[in-house]
Amino acid sequence: MSHVMIGLVGVGKIARDQHIPAMTAVSGCQLVATADPHAALPDTPAYASLEAMLDAHPEIAAVAVCTPTHLRYSQARLALMRGKHVLLEKPPGATLSEVEDLMTVADQQGGSLFAAWHSRFAPGVAHARQWLAERRIQRVEIEWKEDVRVWHPGQAWIWQPGGMGVFDPGINALSIATAILPQPFFLRGATLQVPSNCQTPIAAELSFTDAHEAVIEAHFDFRQTGPQTWDIHIETDAGRLDLTQGGCCLAIDGEMVVEAEEREYAGLYGHFAELVARHESDVDVAPLRQVADAFLYGHREMVDAFIE
Amino acid sequence: MSHVMIGLVGVGKIARDQHIPAMTAVSGCQLVATADPHAALPDTPAYASLEAMLDAHPEIAAVAVCTPTHLRYSQARLALMRGKHVLLEKPPGATLSEVEDLMTVADQQGGSLFAAWHSRFAPGVAHARQWLAERRIQRVEIEWKEDVRVWHPGQAWIWQPGGMGVFDPGINALSIATAILPQPFFLRGATLQVPSNCQTPIAAELSFTDAHEAVIEAHFDFRQTGPQTWDIHIETDAGRLDLTQGGCCLAIDGEMVVEAEEREYAGLYGHFAELVARHESDVDVAPLRQVADAFLYGHREMVDAFIE
Repeated sequence: MSHVMIGLVGVGKIARDQHIPAMTAVSGCQLVATADPHAALPDTPAYASLEAMLDAHPEIAAVAVCTPTHLRYSQARLALMRGKHVLLEKPPGATLSEVEDLMTVADQQGGSLFAAWHSRFAPGVAHARQWLAERRIQRVEIEWKEDVRVWHPGQAWIWQPGGMGVFDPGINALSIATAILPQPFFLRGATLQVPSNCQTPIAAELSFTDAHEAVIEAHFDFRQTGPQTWDIHIETDAGRLDLTQGGCCLAIDGEMVVEAEEREYAGLYGHFAELVARHESDVDVAPLRQVADAFLYGHREMVDAFIE
Repeated sequence: MSHVMIGLVGVGKIARDQHIPAMTAVSGCQLVATADPHAALPDTPAYASLEAMLDAHPEIAAVAVCTPTHLRYSQARLALMRGKHVLLEKPPGATLSEVEDLMTVADQQGGSLFAAWHSRFAPGVAHARQWLAERRIQRVEIEWKEDVRVWHPGQAWIWQPGGMGVFDPGINALSIATAILPQPFFLRGATLQVPSNCQTPIAAELSFTDAHEAVIEAHFDFRQTGPQTWDIHIETDAGRLDLTQGGCCLAIDGEMVVEAEEREYAGLYGHFAELVARHESDVDVAPLRQVADAFLYGHREMVDAFIE
């Protein structure tokens, strides 16, 4: 498999923390240049715009889009229209409708479009999915509780429309749940707690079910201090599964079967290289659809203002 | 084409005002029985539940679901699993995820599933769609303003999660726009005005665009007294179109080309009979997806309490 030559759009925190190290580590990918009006890397050709980067580097075959959500659609579209493959950081768009349109454009242009859900590449996820495939789900408890001040310092966008508040981490849990549960599930009720000075929730209680009336509950909270919790507990007709530490640890009937270091973005870029080689796309909007459903159908309660 | 024998679930206002007269008027359909724990029609066999109705009338081939939104999924699923065709009143579900699952079930069962958008059957819509197909859209103004006290007296559900507030009529405008505009469009920004004692908006300002950067604006308001407004104005590269009075009147370049009585539900049941005859489904979630996008991405402002 030849290397996928990649141009990166948006040199922000997630690009530096995850994308660039992963691209460097994965054998199938190579970072060629970056595009960002405000930021650059020391030893990589840097451009102020996506267009300038693509003009200067015709060898770029794929674009990784790591800009703020509201900018992604037009950048991804431009890249696809210029015959490039596209990887979208999560969530794949500010709205479902624009992601839908990108899927059409990718089909028309023959480019690989990858809506990346990094948590699906956590070490225990594939095994969990396989183990659950043959079982009937009875009860699911999702606990996704972290300290926003630790993980999103100064990131005011998270409290604005499109920032999704506690659903920014919560969508990672939903991306795992929609991948590993053998039946589709859907919201029956939700409470969203929204700080009086914010647009997006700081906590959420979600109650889902599936066609077999499984009880699926999710508890998202951005106010967790001390130990952080990214756990999914599942009871089935034939045993119990615990996927904890964001998917790094998997226990089945109390016995640890996977316990590994997190290297989600390496898995993600490996998968992207395979998609490009196979001329395929991978766009599953289910996690974003679940979030939109929660905003559409959830009950809002006003809670104390959030002061960072 | 033989008659489609129909069982009706949910004998509420919309069923009495629209569905029953339309079924009676359309030659391809015939009302067999109703299911509702609290209501019945004088001369039609009536049952307290969908299951009891289907047990008693094996000749029923299709079920029209007119219950409150949060009940529709389980009823539609039950009917599909029993080999029936299903017509869903708009919106087709409380969430997008449950509609997605119904599409899968309909495919598996071989039943026709019809997510009905009644406004798409307004007299001027088909002509408008045809005329716009060849043109480039420059500007769209959607004005959908009505008096909630006149059209939804005592309907407290409209202010609860899932009731959608002003998007209950607004989704009709979106169902027309998504049908007649030649390019998909998506939200760029929205303001939702939510009364301090309600969960859902009483007014909304929406700004959309499409791949060609058309300017598409929608103004929804539930506080309109006096004359009511259900109008869509479209400027193109080759002329202007005005679709007014909810789609009953269509003017092109100022000249009235369609001006007809509203008989949306007759058109809707005629289409359903055709779908059943052809073993096809028609589920376009685009209007509900646009509403979910607005709830996900819109900016909320609190406004005066709504006192009916």
